[in-house]
Amino acid sequence: MSLLLTNLGSLVTNDPAQGSGLLGLVQDAAVVVENGTIAWVGAAAAAPATDEQFDAEGRSLLPGFVDSHAHLVFAGDRTAEFNARMSGQAYTAGGIRTTVAATRAATDAELDANLTRFVNEALRQGTTTIECKSGYGLTVADEARALRIAAAHTPETTYLGAHVVAPEYADDPAGYVDLVTGEMLDACAPHARWVDVFCENGAFDGDQARAILTAGAKRGLIPRVHANQLSYGPGVQLAVELGAASADHCTHLTDADVSALASGDTVATLLPGAEFSTRAPYPDARRLLDAGATVALSTDCNPGSSFTSSMAFCVAVAVREMGMTPDEAVHAATAGGAQALRRTDVGRITVGARADLLLLDAPSHVHLAYRPGVPLTAAVWRGGQREL
Amino acid sequence: MSLLLTNLGSLVTNDPAQGSGLLGLVQDAAVVVENGTIAWVGAAAAAPATDEQFDAEGRSLLPGFVDSHAHLVFAGDRTAEFNARMSGQAYTAGGIRTTVAATRAATDAELDANLTRFVNEALRQGTTTIECKSGYGLTVADEARALRIAAAHTPETTYLGAHVVAPEYADDPAGYVDLVTGEMLDACAPHARWVDVFCENGAFDGDQARAILTAGAKRGLIPRVHANQLSYGPGVQLAVELGAASADHCTHLTDADVSALASGDTVATLLPGAEFSTRAPYPDARRLLDAGATVALSTDCNPGSSFTSSMAFCVAVAVREMGMTPDEAVHAATAGGAQALRRTDVGRITVGARADLLLLDAPSHVHLAYRPGVPLTAAVWRGGQREL
Repeated sequence: MSLLLTNLGSLVTNDPAQGSGLLGLVQDAAVVVENGTIAWVGAAAAAPATDEQFDAEGRSLLPGFVDSHAHLVFAGDRTAEFNARMSGQAYTAGGIRTTVAATRAATDAELDANLTRFVNEALRQGTTTIECKSGYGLTVADEARALRIAAAHTPETTYLGAHVVAPEYADDPAGYVDLVTGEMLDACAPHARWVDVFCENGAFDGDQARAILTAGAKRGLIPRVHANQLSYGPGVQLAVELGAASADHCTHLTDADVSALASGDTVATLLPGAEFSTRAPYPDARRLLDAGATVALSTDCNPGSSFTSSMAFCVAVAVREMGMTPDEAVHAATAGGAQALRRTDVGRITVGARADLLLLDAPSHVHLAYRPGVPLTAAVWRGGQREL
Repeated sequence: MSLLLTNLGSLVTNDPAQGSGLLGLVQDAAVVVENGTIAWVGAAAAAPATDEQFDAEGRSLLPGFVDSHAHLVFAGDRTAEFNARMSGQAYTAGGIRTTVAATRAATDAELDANLTRFVNEALRQGTTTIECKSGYGLTVADEARALRIAAAHTPETTYLGAHVVAPEYADDPAGYVDLVTGEMLDACAPHARWVDVFCENGAFDGDQARAILTAGAKRGLIPRVHANQLSYGPGVQLAVELGAASADHCTHLTDADVSALASGDTVATLLPGAEFSTRAPYPDARRLLDAGATVALSTDCNPGSSFTSSMAFCVAVAVREMGMTPDEAVHAATAGGAQALRRTDVGRITVGARADLLLLDAPSHVHLAYRPGVPLTAAVWRGGQREL
């Protein structure tokens, strides 16, 4: 079955060879989908005959969002903690550990139902590829089950046993690193594509992070790093040195950090939802882009510091606060995320790519920034299947 | 037909006599709707028998949003202008006058279709009361038709002939004020409840604003004022002096302005979408609240400076940027908007109020700030009718 999408508004291909500017924008274009992939892209007037047609009525088509950083295997929420923080009140609960306790106490079915709900919520907002980390189990069994549950929903699963030191190892962080690089890794590697570590004061230092990422790489997991979120530190340069696919957060960067990102293949993944929801300063996307680094935008969806699943919201905030143009932000939320996941089959609308498509209820992709907060999903296809 | 809404999460009544805190929060509550109004509110265990029941499954119920400031009778959009502004490029188009030209050129049917689309878009996001201004016609006939078209959708219609000086009067602003207070007012007053003026450098000064508001008041229209948006000025104190229902924007306030708002009955309506979309400094809601002023939040939805229709987005930004607690922001977007429109039948869930209700896809109203950008509408009732 072949399907022609025609009468499109702005078409974002993310292929500069195919259209204008960074986004490879094509006007008066049409797209043919066949066998779950893009079979043809070009001027509507030259479109081939197909089995079916879809009239886009002038609405904009872009690649489905690629959300390369999310923490969706968890139970409970942290409404009271958020409310206290934003109300200027003291709150002495346990942060991540609150979620660890709730997640450990949940059944597999509860965790799967919660994850399914968030994946579907993201899909309704145009996210067709989503990464999913462990990190709220922090035992061998709980980390492994988190990844097993996640792997049923996405191939982009990330082993984050090194989210924080497990409470049982509060007095023995070295022992916890041994666990994360040993028995826990053995149990988790079969279910994961990536290995990640939260490299930060109060979590894991540079030496610990290096040990964890290196051990994961030896098991075939590709590194990615929570780096330089709350303070300056070694995370970004370690990520580049180890050939990580992405350094995530990048909020506090020295000139050397920026140079490292600009010269290597490591994507700078920025997560404005976290700064929005913690009233923290935003990362400087403009500085990274001007230096030549590749930038991705992702949600960081998690119940503590960034409980948004909206890539459109991240695009709007990145334009408002981080010096990105609307085109740059849309690119970062699609092609940037794909690069952060080392995927060439998503994040673009080119022949042979997966037919993961977001039709906006707007004539232009610019409306993602121009109409902040407004749900603009008109239709979503994933692998050529109409999802809504 | 009586309907019981039961198994509610947090219930926002906005009646401190009925529950805890500013929002009059009730836990384990139920609500009965009958003949389009609220017939009963109380503990679920004590609920009376009804014809039908709705199981809210633990989700939060609040009054439908009251958006007391929107500009929805227009044609065209200003994507290119927004894109240039956010991309740091020069753009020499005409601002409001671009929209005036497109609006004048549109047919009645086109304007009505556009307005219908935006009212429905807002409704899907939980807005059950929406104000609508003229101001993109700027001729006697075009202003009157804008209000006639708006009046078919909402009783909250505002005559804003004094949005900017019409291009035909560029060299004769006094002549335009004569028109706005004379023939245009005669044509518009039958279709409007409110009279408004953009009191700002480059629009109308304090004397002109006073003349326009006073003339409108003599025709039975109640004043509201676009005040102190781009610079300090006389708008806020004029609004309070004339007993305006609301002073809108309030971005640049002196201590005397704050005192005036705190001592009078004029609501300070803050419009964070405008600051978000123009990268302008936000108004200081905290200062106003601490002084004792009543604050409302609204979208300012218009194609130039704030093209959001999302009250939830405004709540989230107000919490992030304007020093409001989640409770204060939710109050401002419901009860605050109602007060800015001098309505006692909306913005609250109390016996006798209209059954304008928003059920969130979340257990707590706090999620409107906690989950920024995520569409959280689970159901909406307007006058007791299920709208979605």
